[in-house]
Amino acid sequence: MITDEIKTSNLSDIRFLNEHDIGQEMYRLVSELYPICRSITGNGFRETLDIIKDYIELEVHEVPTGTEVFDWTVPKEWNIKDAYIKNLKGERIVDFKKNNLHVVNYSVPVNKLMPFEELKSHLFTLPDYPDRIPYRTSYYKESWGFCLSHEQFLALKDEEYEVCIDSTLEEGSLTYGEYYLQGESEDEVLISCHACHPSLCNDNLSGIALATFLAKYLSQISPRYSYRFLFIPGTIGSITWLSLNEAQVYRIKHGLVLTGVGDPGNFTYKKSRRGNAEIDRAVIHVLKHSGLEHAIIDFFPFGYDERQFCSPGFNLPVGCFMRSSHGHYSEYHTSADNLNFVQPQYLADSFSKCLSALNIIENNKPYLNQNPKCEPQLGKRGLYRAIGGQAEEQVNELALLWVLNLSDGEHTLLDIADKSNFDFDAIKKAADALLKHGLLK
Amino acid sequence: MITDEIKTSNLSDIRFLNEHDIGQEMYRLVSELYPICRSITGNGFRETLDIIKDYIELEVHEVPTGTEVFDWTVPKEWNIKDAYIKNLKGERIVDFKKNNLHVVNYSVPVNKLMPFEELKSHLFTLPDYPDRIPYRTSYYKESWGFCLSHEQFLALKDEEYEVCIDSTLEEGSLTYGEYYLQGESEDEVLISCHACHPSLCNDNLSGIALATFLAKYLSQISPRYSYRFLFIPGTIGSITWLSLNEAQVYRIKHGLVLTGVGDPGNFTYKKSRRGNAEIDRAVIHVLKHSGLEHAIIDFFPFGYDERQFCSPGFNLPVGCFMRSSHGHYSEYHTSADNLNFVQPQYLADSFSKCLSALNIIENNKPYLNQNPKCEPQLGKRGLYRAIGGQAEEQVNELALLWVLNLSDGEHTLLDIADKSNFDFDAIKKAADALLKHGLLK
Amino acid sequence: MITDEIKTSNLSDIRFLNEHDIGQEMYRLVSELYPICRSITGNGFRETLDIIKDYIELEVHEVPTGTEVFDWTVPKEWNIKDAYIKNLKGERIVDFKKNNLHVVNYSVPVNKLMPFEELKSHLFTLPDYPDRIPYRTSYYKESWGFCLSHEQFLALKDEEYEVCIDSTLEEGSLTYGEYYLQGESEDEVLISCHACHPSLCNDNLSGIALATFLAKYLSQISPRYSYRFLFIPGTIGSITWLSLNEAQVYRIKHGLVLTGVGDPGNFTYKKSRRGNAEIDRAVIHVLKHSGLEHAIIDFFPFGYDERQFCSPGFNLPVGCFMRSSHGHYSEYHTSADNLNFVQPQYLADSFSKCLSALNIIENNKPYLNQNPKCEPQLGKRGLYRAIGGQAEEQVNELALLWVLNLSDGEHTLLDIADKSNFDFDAIKKAADALLKHGLLK
Repeated sequence: MITDEIKTSNLSDIRFLNEHDIGQEMYRLVSELYPICRSITGNGFRETLDIIKDYIELEVHEVPTGTEVFDWTVPKEWNIKDAYIKNLKGERIVDFKKNNLHVVNYSVPVNKLMPFEELKSHLFTLPDYPDRIPYRTSYYKESWGFCLSHEQFLALKDEEYEVCIDSTLEEGSLTYGEYYLQGESEDEVLISCHACHPSLCNDNLSGIALATFLAKYLSQISPRYSYRFLFIPGTIGSITWLSLNEAQVYRIKHGLVLTGVGDPGNFTYKKSRRGNAEIDRAVIHVLKHSGLEHAIIDFFPFGYDERQFCSPGFNLPVGCFMRSSHGHYSEYHTSADNLNFVQPQYLADSFSKCLSALNIIENNKPYLNQNPKCEPQLGKRGLYRAIGGQAEEQVNELALLWVLNLSDGEHTLLDIADKSNFDFDAIKKAADALLKHGLLK
Repeated sequence: MITDEIKTSNLSDIRFLNEHDIGQEMYRLVSELYPICRSITGNGFRETLDIIKDYIELEVHEVPTGTEVFDWTVPKEWNIKDAYIKNLKGERIVDFKKNNLHVVNYSVPVNKLMPFEELKSHLFTLPDYPDRIPYRTSYYKESWGFCLSHEQFLALKDEEYEVCIDSTLEEGSLTYGEYYLQGESEDEVLISCHACHPSLCNDNLSGIALATFLAKYLSQISPRYSYRFLFIPGTIGSITWLSLNEAQVYRIKHGLVLTGVGDPGNFTYKKSRRGNAEIDRAVIHVLKHSGLEHAIIDFFPFGYDERQFCSPGFNLPVGCFMRSSHGHYSEYHTSADNLNFVQPQYLADSFSKCLSALNIIENNKPYLNQNPKCEPQLGKRGLYRAIGGQAEEQVNELALLWVLNLSDGEHTLLDIADKSNFDFDAIKKAADALLKHGLLK
Repeated sequence: MITDEIKTSNLSDIRFLNEHDIGQEMYRLVSELYPICRSITGNGFRETLDIIKDYIELEVHEVPTGTEVFDWTVPKEWNIKDAYIKNLKGERIVDFKKNNLHVVNYSVPVNKLMPFEELKSHLFTLPDYPDRIPYRTSYYKESWGFCLSHEQFLALKDEEYEVCIDSTLEEGSLTYGEYYLQGESEDEVLISCHACHPSLCNDNLSGIALATFLAKYLSQISPRYSYRFLFIPGTIGSITWLSLNEAQVYRIKHGLVLTGVGDPGNFTYKKSRRGNAEIDRAVIHVLKHSGLEHAIIDFFPFGYDERQFCSPGFNLPVGCFMRSSHGHYSEYHTSADNLNFVQPQYLADSFSKCLSALNIIENNKPYLNQNPKCEPQLGKRGLYRAIGGQAEEQVNELALLWVLNLSDGEHTLLDIADKSNFDFDAIKKAADALLKHGLLK
């Protein structure tokens, strides 16, 4: 069981929590959210935020249909109660209640009999994966449709079907959740995830779970930065948020879009548009020193909400943290992206790596060697091994020498770690020891 | 047949001309020029320009012997009527009329009997390629000689020979041709080729043909840049031209030296001394996206007239566009560089690649995204696929997103193409579509 | 025999001395210094400087115990007359007179009987190399001990031993040697070696020999730079020298720490902290063009006295020139680093490479092409081959063209050599020829 008792000002402490327990907790949240039929607007999204509220004190915002947000307009709100295709015998051949992916998301209502020939153009399948239901949407064109497995499709006969989508597409609002954690500084770290996909575990729920647990644990310490967590519908959500918060955006010094962090694939980090932002270097450092195979990819202007955060008018230092990247796993946007595909240990590993990167951001500063001319005598301070002996403190001597040599005001601890090829933690520990002895400032 | 009817302001249109026909036309010009005995001065050079005048309105310049051009002096004019070595039977053993390579170019007149021993020191052969005649010159040292195949040489007997070179080396002038095409801007693109080699097809005539046909077709559109084409003798020609036109040289914004563009070898591009000039990047882009093996080499201060254009006092952005580079093919400067070695399809391919590079230069500008904050909604403008549908225009969506994301005033279309790894044409098409919809400026 | 007659202002001339003879001379010096028991202070160090004085006019400095030097204090002076471990039969089982490595350097005096159990904690061996005596020190913690081969150790019985170290650790001074050679300029080249190790040939004596012979031969020419040679105890010596000479340090424009230059391993060059100092580029150039395998490594803040010279408060352009680097050869800091390990030919090769690098430093300047617009006509100056002939001077034509093209005031000769891939000597020769003809300034 995860306890709430941790009270520390040190992010590092959270990093030594029991990974197994955290993975289980995150997986439990994913499981709880899985059945809900989310979309970019509507009650499914609200229900999702309600559940997240059990973990963190989320603020829920409603933005009315028709609100102009930059070049876009907040769309009508979509809600759905039921949907099916019935055969002549009255049997539900395709049933929304069994899997909400069966309905093309944002389908307009329909209720009529129609021959197979007419129905066919509204059906979507994946012939290459005949047992999977695809995920399709039609947000910006009023239309309707059903998604089904290719096996189901092949079993359909050339007869008349009763088609019903009991949905509404009406004036309403776009909903999003925001959690703000005040740190020592007004400077912010932005953590954003999209929460608009229905029953898809990796591409959506894993990111939601990671953001939720990062928020939950960070709220137990006093971080240097303030943290802002966004749970938003993809694209229109980030556009809406940026439009409403344009004046405050300058505070964002670092950011991550989280998505696809529960699958067994290798980590993938997509750099911010700037390419060498501190968050980019921090995540790259963590993945490099993880000893795990991973991929670092340059920014490109499609993918998730980093598209908007990194549009040229904002160009925020926001990268995208993933395991398998979208389109690189066959389960992507199909019913196979389910509770089997995502597993607790991968969620926990993602939590741990993300926290390590944030730990770097929190602690990355330049220091000033107080004895810049020649080395200080570490031995007389117990920081250097004597003959056949051991240094008093378990600090790596070479790390000490690196920190001293590069603490010239121009190198941060991350610079030193990268240049020396030491792990950030070892460099931080060395800097702490030197600080304690008055050798750094 | 190539028609002259093309009237378009768009360089792209020329690029879709029938390559086969153009290759044939270029080869015809090469064939017509092949028999002429050219040198750095003299009537062979004038005759060559006369033929080029059938294609473009060339201006012919004459610069008198003795004119000081920087550190050099325009040399005496060389002309030749006949030359031979006759044996005792009166047979022409070596005959200038059969191949003008037989005479060392710029040989002073000679007419006498001499024993083989004396003659020998005036004979040049290629023992490694015993059936080829080498090409030799002696521009700056008054001397005479014959070039012959090693087989011919071995057949010579130790007897007396009659040696005759009916040449003149007298006060006269250096001749060069210039074609200026006025564009929208005074800024110039310089296209230069040397035209001083006698019967050598690749190293000389191919470059002349390419420059001629580029001039011919560019003259049919209204280009952005003005174009200046030079048909000059190597080294002394570029030095003379630079010396006479020093005051106007600042207008040259891009340039190419063309040579060796008709052989079957891979393309080779030698960068300008600057190394990252726009013309360098344009040619490299074209070759990279051609899918063909090719070589990009750094500038070095020997080779062709880029030596002079890129001398430190000028340092012009002029690269050298070739197929096989000099010295990398055994036919170089031998009688094997003939009408078999150069072929129409290679000439046409060189024409096409060169034009593609000039097309980039013509169209490479930075644009400004008019909706820099978040992405504009492409869907409502028909620029984005709807469900199961197609975008209205055949524009690559990802190319649109790249252009929007990087049109921040700091990236030109070529920058965007290089960063996105899209072909320049796709990026240009995307930019045109966005311009049309008012999304770029 | 090495003669002293060389009188030339040209460093290049020294480079063509007989390498074999120089190697023998250097080896003789190493052999002479080998038996002395040196330490960071004391008579062994003084004796060493006395011998070096036979070669160069060394100035000897004495810095009293207790002198504050930055964060450090000059330690007590250590001297030793004898030391041994005797068994019950009165036999010297371990004998300082046989090898001065047997005593832990800086051991306090001891003279008593003790059981093996007590003695054991004062004994140091190398179980992996059972026939070697390790080298150990205890400068900054008062303590005593013996080093012996593991074979000797295993032969010890569990009985009582007489232990004697007849040493003194008292107020005195730290000694170092300095040789200053006045050049044309006040700007200095610093050559430093540590001279505090007892009977160790590569890690110490080879560096001393190299510094001594460089000084000896450079004193016979009139160099452009002034040269300062330091023979100092490691760490405390460089700290002391820097502390006493802080005000003059700004004159040091280039520097090398010399160590481990007599073994058969490949050359290793450790760059200065700046990473692209002229000395770094010069040594790298020499090693690259040597055709020998070698290693170039980035600066790291441990190793030899470059640690102090490159501390952030000084950040001097000082690299470290070695063959095998410390810790990369098993003989390091053991009795196997002896007169067999170091050989004359390796010493001579190190001398030659070092001199080549200094030759670059001495001659590396930017020149200005006096005919920057187009190439000057080399032929009329006899610098270019005529037909079938040879250039008058044995200068590489391509090197001439490179020097002309890049002598724009922004490139030094080393820049030109690196860019053209020519050896520095060829470029220097070309520049000299051009200077002679007034084509450069």
